Amino acid sequence: MTVLEKINSPQDVKKLSIEEMNSLADDIRSAIINRVNTIGGHLGPDLGIAEAAIAMHYVFNSPEDKFVFDVSHQVYPHKMLTGRKHGFVDPSRFLEISGYSNPQESEHDHFVIGHTSTSVSLATGLAKARDLKNEKYNVIALIGDGSLSGGEAYEGFNNAAELDSNMIIIINDNEMSIAPNEGGLYKNLAELRNTNGQAVNNVFKAIGFDYYYVEEGNNVEALISAFEKVKDTNRPTVVHIHTLKGKGYEPAVLDKETYHWHIPGFLDKKTGDIAFETESYNSITKDFLLKKKQSGEPVVAITAATPGVFEFNPDFREKMGKNYTDVGIAEEHAIAYASGLAKNGAKPVLCLMSSFVQRTYDQMSQDLALNNSPATVLIYWGGISGADMTHLCTFDIPLISNIPNIVYLAPTSKEEYLAMLEWSYNQNEHPVFIRVPATELVSTGIEDNTDYSKLNKYKLVKKGEKAAIIAAGTFFALGEQVKQELKTQTGIDATLINPCYLTGVDEELLNELKKDHSLVITLEDGELDGGFGEKVTRFYGNSCMKVLNFGAKKEFTDRVPLEELYNRYHLTKELIVNDMKEVL
Amino acid sequence: MTVLEKINSPQDVKKLSIEEMNSLADDIRSAIINRVNTIGGHLGPDLGIAEAAIAMHYVFNSPEDKFVFDVSHQVYPHKMLTGRKHGFVDPSRFLEISGYSNPQESEHDHFVIGHTSTSVSLATGLAKARDLKNEKYNVIALIGDGSLSGGEAYEGFNNAAELDSNMIIIINDNEMSIAPNEGGLYKNLAELRNTNGQAVNNVFKAIGFDYYYVEEGNNVEALISAFEKVKDTNRPTVVHIHTLKGKGYEPAVLDKETYHWHIPGFLDKKTGDIAFETESYNSITKDFLLKKKQSGEPVVAITAATPGVFEFNPDFREKMGKNYTDVGIAEEHAIAYASGLAKNGAKPVLCLMSSFVQRTYDQMSQDLALNNSPATVLIYWGGISGADMTHLCTFDIPLISNIPNIVYLAPTSKEEYLAMLEWSYNQNEHPVFIRVPATELVSTGIEDNTDYSKLNKYKLVKKGEKAAIIAAGTFFALGEQVKQELKTQTGIDATLINPCYLTGVDEELLNELKKDHSLVITLEDGELDGGFGEKVTRFYGNSCMKVLNFGAKKEFTDRVPLEELYNRYHLTKELIVNDMKEVL
Repeated sequence: MTVLEKINSPQDVKKLSIEEMNSLADDIRSAIINRVNTIGGHLGPDLGIAEAAIAMHYVFNSPEDKFVFDVSHQVYPHKMLTGRKHGFVDPSRFLEISGYSNPQESEHDHFVIGHTSTSVSLATGLAKARDLKNEKYNVIALIGDGSLSGGEAYEGFNNAAELDSNMIIIINDNEMSIAPNEGGLYKNLAELRNTNGQAVNNVFKAIGFDYYYVEEGNNVEALISAFEKVKDTNRPTVVHIHTLKGKGYEPAVLDKETYHWHIPGFLDKKTGDIAFETESYNSITKDFLLKKKQSGEPVVAITAATPGVFEFNPDFREKMGKNYTDVGIAEEHAIAYASGLAKNGAKPVLCLMSSFVQRTYDQMSQDLALNNSPATVLIYWGGISGADMTHLCTFDIPLISNIPNIVYLAPTSKEEYLAMLEWSYNQNEHPVFIRVPATELVSTGIEDNTDYSKLNKYKLVKKGEKAAIIAAGTFFALGEQVKQELKTQTGIDATLINPCYLTGVDEELLNELKKDHSLVITLEDGELDGGFGEKVTRFYGNSCMKVLNFGAKKEFTDRVPLEELYNRYHLTKELIVNDMKEVL
Repeated sequence: MTVLEKINSPQDVKKLSIEEMNSLADDIRSAIINRVNTIGGHLGPDLGIAEAAIAMHYVFNSPEDKFVFDVSHQVYPHKMLTGRKHGFVDPSRFLEISGYSNPQESEHDHFVIGHTSTSVSLATGLAKARDLKNEKYNVIALIGDGSLSGGEAYEGFNNAAELDSNMIIIINDNEMSIAPNEGGLYKNLAELRNTNGQAVNNVFKAIGFDYYYVEEGNNVEALISAFEKVKDTNRPTVVHIHTLKGKGYEPAVLDKETYHWHIPGFLDKKTGDIAFETESYNSITKDFLLKKKQSGEPVVAITAATPGVFEFNPDFREKMGKNYTDVGIAEEHAIAYASGLAKNGAKPVLCLMSSFVQRTYDQMSQDLALNNSPATVLIYWGGISGADMTHLCTFDIPLISNIPNIVYLAPTSKEEYLAMLEWSYNQNEHPVFIRVPATELVSTGIEDNTDYSKLNKYKLVKKGEKAAIIAAGTFFALGEQVKQELKTQTGIDATLINPCYLTGVDEELLNELKKDHSLVITLEDGELDGGFGEKVTRFYGNSCMKVLNFGAKKEFTDRVPLEELYNRYHLTKELIVNDMKEVL
C-alpha cells in the first residue's frame, strides 16, 4: 500500500512520520507524471511543490486556514491531499478533477484561479474579511517566482504589507517562469538564494514584510520547521522556498521549459523536444520575424512569458537576439512597451494569447490606441474552445474591437495572414491586431494583394442573392459550408463575404445587399455580446433586412467539448441553415 | 520683464544663471496658480516640480533627449519651457493647451498620457528602439511617488532594469499620491528620505538600478548636479528627488489633497474646503456606507487612490476606520481584493471612476465574475463628456456588460439607486456593478420596492403604441423628453421603458412589444459599439421590428463640448424624433 492510498484528507497527513511524508511526495510525483502523461497538464511546477504541499497541510489546518494557489500551476499535490487523489491515480476519473483551483470540487479551494499573479490580492481580501469579523486563522498565498513579475502581484504585495495581522506568502522559487524569468526582480531573488536569504538587498523586507528563507525547498523537515515558525504570525510574512522544478522526472529537471506544461504521451519519447516540421501559422510567423531581423530591420518580437504558445523556442530566441524581448508575465507593460517602440521607429510585433490579452484593456486603449502607435499585435488561440473556464479565448473580439483607432483583422488563410502582417508591419497609421487562426494552415495558393489600408473594406467572395453570409476569420470555412448546404436544401445561391475587419462595417457593401437580399447572417468565432455581428445588425436596424448573428453565448464554459458548444450555439451548417430557413 | 517672458524654447533655459532659474521657477508657479484658478487643473504636483523641470531642460537636450511624464500631473512647467507658455500666461489662450502631455502640441511631448503608472513602460520602449537603431541620447521617465503603486509601473521598472543602456527614471517624491500614499513601498520611500538615500533597504537597488537621492528636490543647483551625474549613463538609473507638493502656495502645501487638482476660483476663498451640503449621489452613498459600518456590519468601502471622486473626505475616512481601504493606484488589486473580501463574508463596496475601471478587465472577468463573488462595484462618472481624451468615461458599458455573470445596473433616480445598492449589498449570488448617475440627484419621492434578483426584468414605465423608447440610466430623462416631443409632433403615444439592467434583455417584454410596435429605440449614455442597445437590436434581428440605437460613436474625443457631442450623436429630443419619423 502506498502512503498516498492512505490519504483521504489533510487530517491523514498530520499522522505521518517524516519518512512517510517523503514516500508520500514520491507517490504524488508518480501520480502527477501518470496523469499528465495521460491527459496532459502542468508537470514541472507540480513535481517541485510536493513536499511543500505536504508540509503546508501538516502544519496548517485547511480549510480553516486558507490556502490560495497562484495561477494553479502548483495545485495538484494540494488536490491529492484534500480528497481528490482519484483524479490523479484512477485514469477513468482523471477528467473529473480540473487542473485548476476550484471551490466546486472542494472546500479546500477558495477561488477558481487560472491567470497569474492574483493570489496575494485574493488572499489579502480573505485576511481583511477575517479581521473585520474578528476571526482567527492563517491566510496563506502560494505564488511562484514567475508570477511575481505581474503587476497585480505587486499591487497585492504592496497592500498586504499594510495588513496589521496574519498574512503568509510562500514564494515557490524554482528559478523559472514558464520560460526563463525576465526582469530586475529576478536578480534579487538570485542574490537571496545565493546568500541563503541573507542578502542586504531584499525587496520583500524593503516593503515591510518579515522574511524567511528555506534553501531546501524539497526537504519536508526544513519546510515544516519554517512554516511552524510563521504559523499564527500577526505580521505580513514572506517565506521564500527554493524548490526544484521537475523534481523526480529527470527530463523535466533538465528542460524545465518544455516540461512546464506538456501534452500527453511524453513518457514514450526519448527527449522532450517536439519537432514541428509542417508549415503552420506559428512557423510562418517565425519565418516572417526572422526574415525582418536578418534584413537588419528594427523588428522586435515580444512575448509576455509564454513563448511556447507561439513556438518561440530557444533556437528562435537565440536567432532573434536583441530583437526579441520576453517582458515576463507583464502584459500591460508589453503593450506600453510596444507603443514606445513603435513611436520611436522600431517595429514591434507583440504576440499574446487571447485569454491573456484580457490583462491589458486600459493599455490597449490609452498607451496604444489613443496614441495611434503603429504596433502589430498578434492574438493567438482566439475562438470558442473546450478549454478550462479559466483559459477561454472567447472574449477578445468584444474586448479589442470596441476600442477606437484599433484595426482588428481576421485572416482566413495563410496568404491573407501574411499580406495583413506585411501591411501592418510597414504602415505607420494604426495599432493593428491580427487574430492568428487557431487552426491548421489553410492555403489558397493565390497571393493576396489586397490594400488593407482601405479600412473596413469587406471582400465579396461570391455574389449571390436573397441571403448573404458574412463569415469572419476561422469561421470563413463554416460560411462556405453554409452556402453549400443552403444551396442543396433550398436552391438559394447565397452571397459569401469575408469581412477581414472585425472593427467596423463596410457600409457601401451592406447597403448594396439591400437590393436583392432579405437576410444577412454573421458568423464569428467568439462571444456575440459586444462582438462583430452586432455591428452589422445595428447597421441594418432602420431597414427591412433581417439579420441573424451566430457565435458564442455570453457565458463561462468549463471543459465542454467543442462539438457540444457548436450544437448549443447553432454553429453547424445544418443548424444555421435551419435557422435561416425559418426567416427566409 | 519676467524670466518666463524670455523663455521660448529649452535653448533659452540653458542660458540662465541659477538666480534667474530660481526666478523662473517662481514665474512658473505664478502662471500655474493663475491658470488653475481660471480654468481648473492640477495644482499641487505642478507647483512642486518647477525646479526639476527647469533643471531637466538645463541639463538634457529635449527633444533629442526624450522626457516621458507619468500621468501628466506634473507636465505644466515642461509645457511652459517648450514654447507653450501662452497656455499659462495668456487667459485668452489657456484652452489652447491641454492639461496633459500631447505630441500634437509639441515635439517635446512623445505620448498622450493621462492614466497613471505608464511612463516607465513607454520610456523603456523608446530606449529599446533607440538601441536597436544604434542611436545615442537620454531617455528620461518622470514618475511621481503616487504612481509607483500601479502594477504597470512595477512591470516597467522590472523590465527597464534589464536594459543594458541609458534609461533614467526620476522619481518625484512629494510624499503624496492624490490622497496619502498607501502600501508597503511607501515605508521604503520614507526610509530612503529619512536616511538621505542611504538606507540599506532600497527596492530600486534591489532590482538592479543605480540609485541617486536628492533631498532638496526644489533646489535647482542640487538637481542640476544630480542630473549631470546621470546624463549619458549607460545603466538603468533612478534619481529619487524629494519635492514639496504645492510649493509656493501655502494652502496647497498645508492641504495637499484638496489642492492636488482644483476647480477654478480658489484664490477668492479663505480655505480649500468645499462644502457639499446638498444631497447628492455621493452624499447618499456615503450615508449608506456609514450606516452599515455603524450597525457593526463587515462593510468595506474601497477606493484606488481617488477618494475625492466620491467625496470620501478625511472625515468620512476617519469615521469608516478599519472599514475603509484605499489600495493606492492599484485598480487590479482592488477588484481581486474585493473578491476575496466577498468570498470570506465581508461586504465590499468598491468605488471606481469609469475611466479607471478600464485597468481591470481581466480581474473583473477572472477574479470576480468567474468566481461569482458578490461584491458591489460602483462606477462613477460614466457617460459621454467633454473631458480630455485621456479621461473619457464613454466605454464602461461595452467593457463591463459583456463579461459573463456580472450584473450591471443603471439607476435613474435616488430611490432606484438606493434600492439597487441595498439589494446588491445583501445578495450573495452575483458581482453587481451600479452606474452611479453622474448628474444631480433625481428624486421621485416614491420608494422603490423592486426585486432586483429577477435579472433583466425591465420596467414598463408607460405603455403606449407604435414606438417604444428604452432609455437607460442617466438618459431616462431624455427618453421622457423624446416621448413628449414625439407626441407633440406626431400624436404617437410611445411606450417608455426603463431597462435597469445593462447586461441583458427582457425577452418577454421585447416580444410583447412586437404586437403593437414597429419601432424600438434605445438610448444609452456611452459608446454604441458593444454596448447595451446592440443587445436589443440583435434580439430583434429575426423580426420585422426596426431598431435605432442612440449613443456615442466609437471615437476618442478631446475636450469637445457636451452639446456638440450630443448634436453629433443625435442625442437631443428633436434629432431623435426626426430619426424616428424617418422610420415610422
